[in-house]
This record gives sequence, structure tokens and C-alpha cells, in this order.
Amino acid sequence: MLLDYLNLDETAAEPLYQQLYRFFCSAITHGQITAGEHLPSIRRLAEDLNVSRTTVETAYQQLCVEGYLESRPQRGYYALALPLTPQKSSAVQRVSPAASAPKLRYRFSTDSIDRRAFRVELWQKYIREALSHQEIITAYGDHQGEPELRSALAEYSHSVRGVTASPERIVVGAGTQPLLFMLSGMLRRNDRMIGMESPGFVQAEQVFADCGLEICRLPGDESGIRLDALESSGVRIIYVNPTNRLGSGSPIPMTRRAELIEWAARRGAMILEDDYNGELRYSARPIPAMQSIGSGDNVVYLGTFSKVLLPSVRMGYLVLPPSLASVYQERSAAYNQTASRVEQLALARMIREGELEKQLRRLRKLYAAKGELLLCCLQKEFGSAIQITMQETALRVVVSPGIPADSAQLCALAAGQNVQVLPFGENELPGRVLLGFSGIAQEDIPEAVHRLSLAWKTKI
Amino acid sequence: MLLDYLNLDETAAEPLYQQLYRFFCSAITHGQITAGEHLPSIRRLAEDLNVSRTTVETAYQQLCVEGYLESRPQRGYYALALPLTPQKSSAVQRVSPAASAPKLRYRFSTDSIDRRAFRVELWQKYIREALSHQEIITAYGDHQGEPELRSALAEYSHSVRGVTASPERIVVGAGTQPLLFMLSGMLRRNDRMIGMESPGFVQAEQVFADCGLEICRLPGDESGIRLDALESSGVRIIYVNPTNRLGSGSPIPMTRRAELIEWAARRGAMILEDDYNGELRYSARPIPAMQSIGSGDNVVYLGTFSKVLLPSVRMGYLVLPPSLASVYQERSAAYNQTASRVEQLALARMIREGELEKQLRRLRKLYAAKGELLLCCLQKEFGSAIQITMQETALRVVVSPGIPADSAQLCALAAGQNVQVLPFGENELPGRVLLGFSGIAQEDIPEAVHRLSLAWKTKI
Repeated sequence: MLLDYLNLDETAAEPLYQQLYRFFCSAITHGQITAGEHLPSIRRLAEDLNVSRTTVETAYQQLCVEGYLESRPQRGYYALALPLTPQKSSAVQRVSPAASAPKLRYRFSTDSIDRRAFRVELWQKYIREALSHQEIITAYGDHQGEPELRSALAEYSHSVRGVTASPERIVVGAGTQPLLFMLSGMLRRNDRMIGMESPGFVQAEQVFADCGLEICRLPGDESGIRLDALESSGVRIIYVNPTNRLGSGSPIPMTRRAELIEWAARRGAMILEDDYNGELRYSARPIPAMQSIGSGDNVVYLGTFSKVLLPSVRMGYLVLPPSLASVYQERSAAYNQTASRVEQLALARMIREGELEKQLRRLRKLYAAKGELLLCCLQKEFGSAIQITMQETALRVVVSPGIPADSAQLCALAAGQNVQVLPFGENELPGRVLLGFSGIAQEDIPEAVHRLSLAWKTKI
Repeated sequence: MLLDYLNLDETAAEPLYQQLYRFFCSAITHGQITAGEHLPSIRRLAEDLNVSRTTVETAYQQLCVEGYLESRPQRGYYALALPLTPQKSSAVQRVSPAASAPKLRYRFSTDSIDRRAFRVELWQKYIREALSHQEIITAYGDHQGEPELRSALAEYSHSVRGVTASPERIVVGAGTQPLLFMLSGMLRRNDRMIGMESPGFVQAEQVFADCGLEICRLPGDESGIRLDALESSGVRIIYVNPTNRLGSGSPIPMTRRAELIEWAARRGAMILEDDYNGELRYSARPIPAMQSIGSGDNVVYLGTFSKVLLPSVRMGYLVLPPSLASVYQERSAAYNQTASRVEQLALARMIREGELEKQLRRLRKLYAAKGELLLCCLQKEFGSAIQITMQETALRVVVSPGIPADSAQLCALAAGQNVQVLPFGENELPGRVLLGFSGIAQEDIPEAVHRLSLAWKTKI
């Protein structure tokens, strides 16, 4: 039987569940386990291998998540059929994490982090600390967010992004969407139309649509939404992603930011500033948040910790201008807090002790190095044939190798060399792809780029 | 000694350290502790009060920061002389709204739990376990909810509530509201009107309003929404709280549940079944969830862990009928998961190991005993003068002592005896109040009821 060939090495650095996971991955990929085959139960396999059930369970779970196995209730685990070609990733944005396709060895994805850049043990410590207070976990927290976290965020957002906020104007939530839902509910009292650039962040659009806001797509230029289009559209609410624009990836420059702020003040309009990755600029000083320009009365600032905190932590915050803060206060009892209380307190502590800013400095340094290495390798392998646009805070580059293949074909060719790249743009020729460098290990970059050149040179 | 008067209330929402802090503030302000007095050491006070040292330390630190105490190295803590007017706490924003009204000693509130009924250490263990897996906390989770939690919930909801669900039709979220937001977004494609009883659950209403759904209030009778009113209203979506109706508090009986299901099937309508506290019936078997009656095709089941899990954990789940499950699948990439990944995995483990059901059995037994004791004490103290309605799954009784006072006056009289009761109903005579018994300690019930009789008898 196949499992007879399974030798787990207890002395290896690699965790047992990981060894087990790799074994099954390989067996399924190579057809030694076929689609529909029933796998041994967790209990039996644990006994056979003399490991804990948790080890087996963790391996199975990972295999389920990645689309190798499925769990059928009351029946157990079954191998799945693998698609012949790797599945297309549909969303360019903060892509669906549990992307169901089997993982390729070298992944220029945009949804992962560089694990080694995080002091995971520190986060574990803060969580354990918050968890040890019985009175914290046995009581409801503050609807608006834990007061300690809100006051830590007031200082942090000022220090990192120039945002002016008092803790009473900060509302914490489990990431962007729950906060945008609440905000849309407040805004739709007066206005039902929201302007945004195209393409926009799909998860924000979904919320606006769910709340019955009509989305008005505003034409933009290199610097963002065009003022003349804005004026003639009649919209009085706009949603912007100033640092991490999805289309061009280039940030809205200071001048356009000021123009937008001036427009909002003049019209009594509201700007929703989603500062996704705003703190991550590393080649130069970050451009200050729009909220920090002028009075801040016409801006709702939305902060997250996307790439700076661990991805498993769901946390974001709004800084409301005074007018909306009072609307919020009136209805605050009608909204429950969505973020975990323990995680809120852990984060508050991490900020207070300066560890979040340290983490940010570490990441800026790391991403600067990785980005530079990636550009360097691309130029070395491809020479002048390739077109490259660096999208710094988005932690990715847009690449066109200039061969007669569209975006999807480029992705497929890369996958043939065990490299994941992401489709970008329409099905035009020559096609372009996205290479995210947040997750890939620095030392893997040269080999991954070399493989891309093998993949794409065959067509050149 | 002064400290003999110090009663910490472990069941209060207010943290222990905060209670301790308030006690010392007040004692120093009122001169019961005088300037220069040596306070007990952290260790000793912690032992005397049977609380953790951290609790005492936190309180002492806050007192130092605010100028009530000073810490002398190697010697301990000493009270300081106060300026003539007591210092105002500078950190107004750090005070949670919950703490702004002085807490009464005996609290028949509905928003607290009986701390001693929870095996807090077990939850801590599960969290620590999930937290120890690096690969879990350094990666994004599944948008829909962790697969192992979804499969645990499929079994749990079936076992406890008769719900028929497969893990693919379950969507996890950080409590009721984020799930209702998403659901409202899906429903509003076809219908903009939602029917509900009056009064309805305010946090659900807020979400529906935020999503631009028009709320149609349907008249009800003892058994819930009236069928004739439903038929003539034209609504095709209704929101119900079958076990925990806010008005009467009595559950929708099986016959009316069946009638509503039959209506929905006939009209192709959708019933949102918010099963809040549905699992908590203890005097008899719980009435099965509406989702478990008939095909389930016209019901969205919403499950939470309100009083069964710790209040600091934000977690709920939807069971979608097949028609909505496919709508969800199409847009699942557009919704991020809101619940903490670590907490999801901890809960999955707790369910798998049977500990959640054990917890539920413990609570049913405890609440049965507390409810009975409360009824017994009320009858003993008030005799036949009082009208009592037990709202079992809501863990509360409605009481009318039959005196010429309205609801607000009854609350104020009770507060005069250091007992918190909640207003109920309009300002009619004789007034009624709510007594929640989830949070109050069992041994406090006789004294609290005795105080109510003192409070109200003066008026009789």
C-alpha cells in the first residue's frame, strides 16, 4: 500500500504535518492517489503512523483548503480530481486567499506575506497576555472598539500617516467591509450615488451595491479622478484608494489630493479615503494621507493593516469627521463591534510598545530589497525586450515580455515552469502580467525569474 | 478595615481592575483612606480578594497615573494628598460607555453572563492551540469560514437545532450584523421590502435600513406574525426571531412555524430565521428550528452563540438555502471573512471535542435553577400581588408588582435599593419591568428580590 512508502522524519526541522501534507500532494499530483479515492480516517492514520491526530488533521485540512481533498460529512476525506491547467485567478485585487488551485513552487502572488519578516512569537505573546485576563474574555467589549486600541490608533495613525484623530472619532471593525457597510448606511441618508475610479476595489464596490448606492464610474488620468469629470458628474461622495490605485498602481500625487480636498470642501462632499498599504511606501517618504490635508472635515479615513499585521487578523478602523462622528454616536448602540476583543487588545499593546512601527520599518527595508532584486533579475534575464512598471506600495510589478501571447497565455506558460504570475488587463497582445513580490522568498526570486525567461523565451 | 466593604462583582461587565480602581478613588476622595496611608501590597491584596495580581497592579497603576497613589520603590504604594476638588479623570475617552453609569450591586441585566458557568480555561487552551500553528496565523483563511469550523457547525446545528446544512452552504461571520449585511445585499436584488414583527431586534433593523430595505411592520398575535396580515402585505421576505420574540418573549409555536413555512413555499418567499438563544430552552425540549421543517428551501438560518460562548468572541453563521448558496458562491470572492481565524479554529475544536454541547447542558441546568429560584423568591416576597411572566429562552421574567408606578419609576425605585431592573413596555399603569437572570449570581437572587420588595412595597 502507498502509505508504506511514507516515512515521517521526527528529527527533521520540517513539521510532521507538513511532511504528511507534501506526501499527499505529491501522491495526488502524480496519480498515485486517484480522484474519488477514500483516504484513511484521521484516527486510523494517526495510529498507523504513531503521530497525533492533530498532525493528521492539520495536513488534511491544508489539503482540503488547497483543493486536493474534500471532506464529506460523516464519511471522511476523498481525493479530488485536479484540473489539468492551473485555475485562472479571476480577481486581480486582494485576491481570494484560499485560491483553490494547487500551489506552484514559485508564487508571485499578491495575497501572501513573507512569513519570516514577522515576529510571530511576539503576536502570540500579546494574544496570550490579553487572553489571560478573565475579565476581558468574559465580558462584552466596547461597541466602538476597545478604548485602549482607539487611543493607540490615534497616535499610530498620526505618527505613520499624519492622520488627525481623537479616539472618540475612531471606530474599529473586523476589516474594511464591516466598516464600509456601516458607513454606507450613514451616507445613504443624504446621497445615493458614489463616485469611484474604474477599475475599483471589488470588495468595496460589493458593499456599496449591497447598500443600494449607485456607483458612478469617473474617468481618471495618471493622477487619479479627473476634476472636470468629477464636477460634471454631480456626485457628492467619492471613494478613493490614493496610494494603491488598482489600474495604474501609481499613487495620487499631492497636487491632485489637494484639488480633491478643495472640491470636497467647496461642495460639502465626502471623500472615503481607503489608505490600503499607504504606510508601505519605502523608496521615498509616504505621501501624507488625504485626511491630514486641510481640516479633515470632508474625509473619512479607512486604515487597515493589510500587509503589516498577520493576515489571519481581521482589523481595520475608520476615522470619522466630526459631522459623521455625531451621526455614529446616535446610532452606536445599534451596531455591534465585529473585531475580536482579544485581538484588539493584543494590537493595542503591540502599538503601545512600538512593535508595530518596528515591524513596519523591517518590512519597508525588506520590500525595498526584494523589489530591487526583482527588477534587477528581470533586466538581466530579459534585457530590453521586457517592459516593466514598478507599483511600489502595491508590492508588485507589471511586466510585458513583448511576445505574441495574451495575459492568460503568459500565466499558463509560467505555470508550466512552476511559477505563478497573475493576469493583468484585457486580452490584448502583447499581454501583461502582474508579479507580486510580498510573499515570495528573497532567495527564490532569481530562480523564479530565470524560469519565467525559460517559459516565455520559447515563444519569443 | 475598609477593605471589608469592598465587593468585587465578577459577573459585572465592568472589569475587576476598574471596580477596584473606582473603590480606591472613592475611598481616597472621601477621606476613608488618608494621605500618606500605606496600601496593602499587590500580592496581599490579590490574595485577600482572590483576584489575579495583574488585576490589582492594573488598578494601582491607573491610580498612580491619575495622582491618587504613589509608588515608592521597595516600599509599596501610598495614598497621596488630593487637591481640594477631586481630579477629573483626564482620559474621558478611555472610559467605556458601559462604565459611565454607576453600576448597581444587584443587576438583573440581560447583557451579561454568569462567569462561573464557563470553563474559561478551556477556551484559553483552544486559542493557545490554534495560535501555536504558525501556518494558521500567517495565512489568510477561507472567505466563507474555516472548512473545519463549517463542518463542525453542520453537525452541531443539526444535533442541537435539527438544522440540515452541508458545510458548503454555511457562511461564517463576526456575529449577526456582518452576515445580515451580506444577506441583505443578496436579497435586495429581487425585493426591497422586509416584513418583521414590532418591536423587532434593533440591530437587525439597522442593517436592513442601511441596505435600503423597507421595513414593513406586520401585526402579530400571541403566536407571532398573523397569516392574514402577511398575505395582504405583499412582502416576500420576513425576518423572525422564533424563539426569542422581543415583544411577548414567547416562542412561535410549532403550528405557526409550519404555517409560515407553508406560506413561504407557496409564495416563493424567504424567511430569515434568527435563532438567537434557540438552543437555550431548558424546561422542555427546544422547539426545532424552522429551517428543519419541510425542505428548508425557503429559510435562511442564522445561528449565534450569544449566551453559550464567551461574550468577547464574535461569531455567527448563516445556513443558506441552495438558491442563495449559489448566489453567494458567485460573489464569495467579493466578501472577506470577518471572524478571527484563530477563534474560528478554537471553536471548531471545542465543538469537535463535544465541549460546546457540554457547556450548553451546564447552562441549561444552571438557568433552569436560577429561573426557578427567581420565581420562587418573587412569589415569597410579593405573594399574589405580583404578575409574573417567564420568558424562558430569553432568560428573563416580566414583572408587574401592581403598584401605581410606571416602568421608569419602578426602575428608579429599584435603583434606590441598589438593584438594576430594565424598563419594559409603554408608560402605562401599573408598570412592568424586565428581570434578566443570565448574569446575576444565583446566591444573590434572594437578597436582590428582597430589596425589590423593599423598594416597591413602600409604594404599595
